[in-house]
Amino acid sequence: MLINRQAYRTIWVSGSPTAYSNIVNIIDQTKLPHHFETITIDSLEQMIAAIKTMQVRGAPLIGAAAAYGVCLALQRDTSDDYIISVAQLLIHSRPTAVNLRWAVQRMLNKILVLNPLQRLEAAWLEAAIICNEDVQLNQAIGQHGLALIKNVHAQLLSPQSRPINILTHCNAGWLATVDFGTALSPIYAAHDAGVAVHVWVDETRPRNQGASLTAWELAQHGVPHTVISDNAGGHLMQHGQVDMVIVGADRVTSTGDVCNKIGTYLKALAAFDNKVPFYAAVPSPTIDWLMIDGLKEIEIEERSAHEVSHMIGRLSNGEIAEINILPPNNLTVETQVANPAFDVTPARLVTGIITELGVYTPDQLVSIKS
Amino acid sequence: MLINRQAYRTIWVSGSPTAYSNIVNIIDQTKLPHHFETITIDSLEQMIAAIKTMQVRGAPLIGAAAAYGVCLALQRDTSDDYIISVAQLLIHSRPTAVNLRWAVQRMLNKILVLNPLQRLEAAWLEAAIICNEDVQLNQAIGQHGLALIKNVHAQLLSPQSRPINILTHCNAGWLATVDFGTALSPIYAAHDAGVAVHVWVDETRPRNQGASLTAWELAQHGVPHTVISDNAGGHLMQHGQVDMVIVGADRVTSTGDVCNKIGTYLKALAAFDNKVPFYAAVPSPTIDWLMIDGLKEIEIEERSAHEVSHMIGRLSNGEIAEINILPPNNLTVETQVANPAFDVTPARLVTGIITELGVYTPDQLVSIKS
Repeated sequence: MLINRQAYRTIWVSGSPTAYSNIVNIIDQTKLPHHFETITIDSLEQMIAAIKTMQVRGAPLIGAAAAYGVCLALQRDTSDDYIISVAQLLIHSRPTAVNLRWAVQRMLNKILVLNPLQRLEAAWLEAAIICNEDVQLNQAIGQHGLALIKNVHAQLLSPQSRPINILTHCNAGWLATVDFGTALSPIYAAHDAGVAVHVWVDETRPRNQGASLTAWELAQHGVPHTVISDNAGGHLMQHGQVDMVIVGADRVTSTGDVCNKIGTYLKALAAFDNKVPFYAAVPSPTIDWLMIDGLKEIEIEERSAHEVSHMIGRLSNGEIAEINILPPNNLTVETQVANPAFDVTPARLVTGIITELGVYTPDQLVSIKS
Repeated sequence: MLINRQAYRTIWVSGSPTAYSNIVNIIDQTKLPHHFETITIDSLEQMIAAIKTMQVRGAPLIGAAAAYGVCLALQRDTSDDYIISVAQLLIHSRPTAVNLRWAVQRMLNKILVLNPLQRLEAAWLEAAIICNEDVQLNQAIGQHGLALIKNVHAQLLSPQSRPINILTHCNAGWLATVDFGTALSPIYAAHDAGVAVHVWVDETRPRNQGASLTAWELAQHGVPHTVISDNAGGHLMQHGQVDMVIVGADRVTSTGDVCNKIGTYLKALAAFDNKVPFYAAVPSPTIDWLMIDGLKEIEIEERSAHEVSHMIGRLSNGEIAEINILPPNNLTVETQVANPAFDVTPARLVTGIITELGVYTPDQLVSIKS
């Protein structure tokens, strides 16, 4: 996608033609949306630090970063013992990231069977394939979603006179992947295909991924968008100002329950109440075939109170600062904070799941497996 | 209610026994929740400034402040001409505040019929009566709401082993009134009556009245409470962690549609979906007998983008600072902001309206009028 009118991926390689002194480039996502800075990474240790400090974030991007971390390590040493120790270090840099473990395992499977002299070149190749596969998968999600968007757009009373209004929650954009994103991929596809699209961006408290990352992505790529407080979406739907909802998901059950960022359920309720179609866009591996009841079976992560009590932004002098928005702790009772990070939207509120294989109603999902 | 374990109202008079050199005291609400400061006000001009800068806020409190503004002016001059010019100034200090106009008019009605020598004493008396009436009205709301709370508490599976969990949105607390508040009045009544009550406080973006004012009030009075992002309430209801919802309202239609702070509708949807009782607590004059369809008839105020893009809080050194959370404006397209300030919850989602006269289902509301 575009940054300053130039095409970027979130991670890319530069280096010598020998392929033995490559460096990896990433966007420092901790600085967004306030400053756009790229970082060059030329060692395993730097890549692990980038993953730990969330300079790279988003499951698919973390997987790609870990794959390149293996490559950078191999520039130093291609022995079995070293590779296995590297794999352990990488996997423990973000212990809950499933894609990270998967990508590292895939790299090991590819290179450990090779002669040590062949390993480095094979590693760079495999990491590039992992990245390209992510891009192709997201593009496929984009094309299936684009057909839906065109369909909804065609049904508007006056599709020529106004854009189609799509609401999204959190950030399931290209910054979380290698390129294109999941929920935002259909939106980019529509915009690039000349469909007039406008995005309502939920700010997505407590971490504000909407107001920071989604708004920044859309602003850079040139897609018209409007940030709203998380409270506003229901009101907009009541007044016909939302034509469809597309969100990402961290997990989808085999029955179509959607586990996504906290607050998604409230938007799904409002969409259902106002007959607005509600879609989740995910790679098919996000579907958990063993789960049938998301509300009962999915354990919701409780995250730090600090995310609710504090906010980061720019002071008027451009400096980045963190403020506390809660009462001080020396009052008669202390203000407590709860921070459930995800919620589950029951399948009965979900119009469809957009995957790289096509669009499925919750009932149809099982057909993917069979 | 209590601040630092002492009983306060939001506005009070101190002065000499002659009643001719009184001063009015208020809490500077612009400093909350970070600093508790009171201000002494001894002139009309100071009171108008306090109203304009929102050092006093909340419809009932603004009315009381305006009444005392008339008294302070009369300490200078009790002539008809001056009083009428004072009334104009006060009414225009917050043009949309209905209570302000009502309170000033009531003061004029009381004093203009009197001999100028009697006016000052009568004015102080009438302003005190306006305050006391507000307190009594809110106490009555509290008692009717307390009966509801006791009823819901008694129906819990194990009422002895856990508190009743009440969710509220925005600030309809005592800081918005002279004392007790509206939505929080039943909660204070329950707490003071020994009912174990715990409050889920929606932070209430964009202006954060929940995280700042409601949390501060409850912390000062000693009521256990937990601040959550506005996104979290639906998830908590899905998991049985909310026993009832009580919110305030800016307007209620004769049919029971509730116009309140943006986001209220989303919580009402979640309450309905999870069979959690949903109440609005309001003084009966808040009911607009001429309106029958809140969604169609109530115009929703669109407020400044600055409220969404910026947040105020404490830096780690204790200083108050304002930060911008959105992308800078020099990207390919500019990030827009929408800020509808209120929404309408349809009566079909409302369990009841708590007033000073009793609790009514939406269908029963008209019986108040007849």
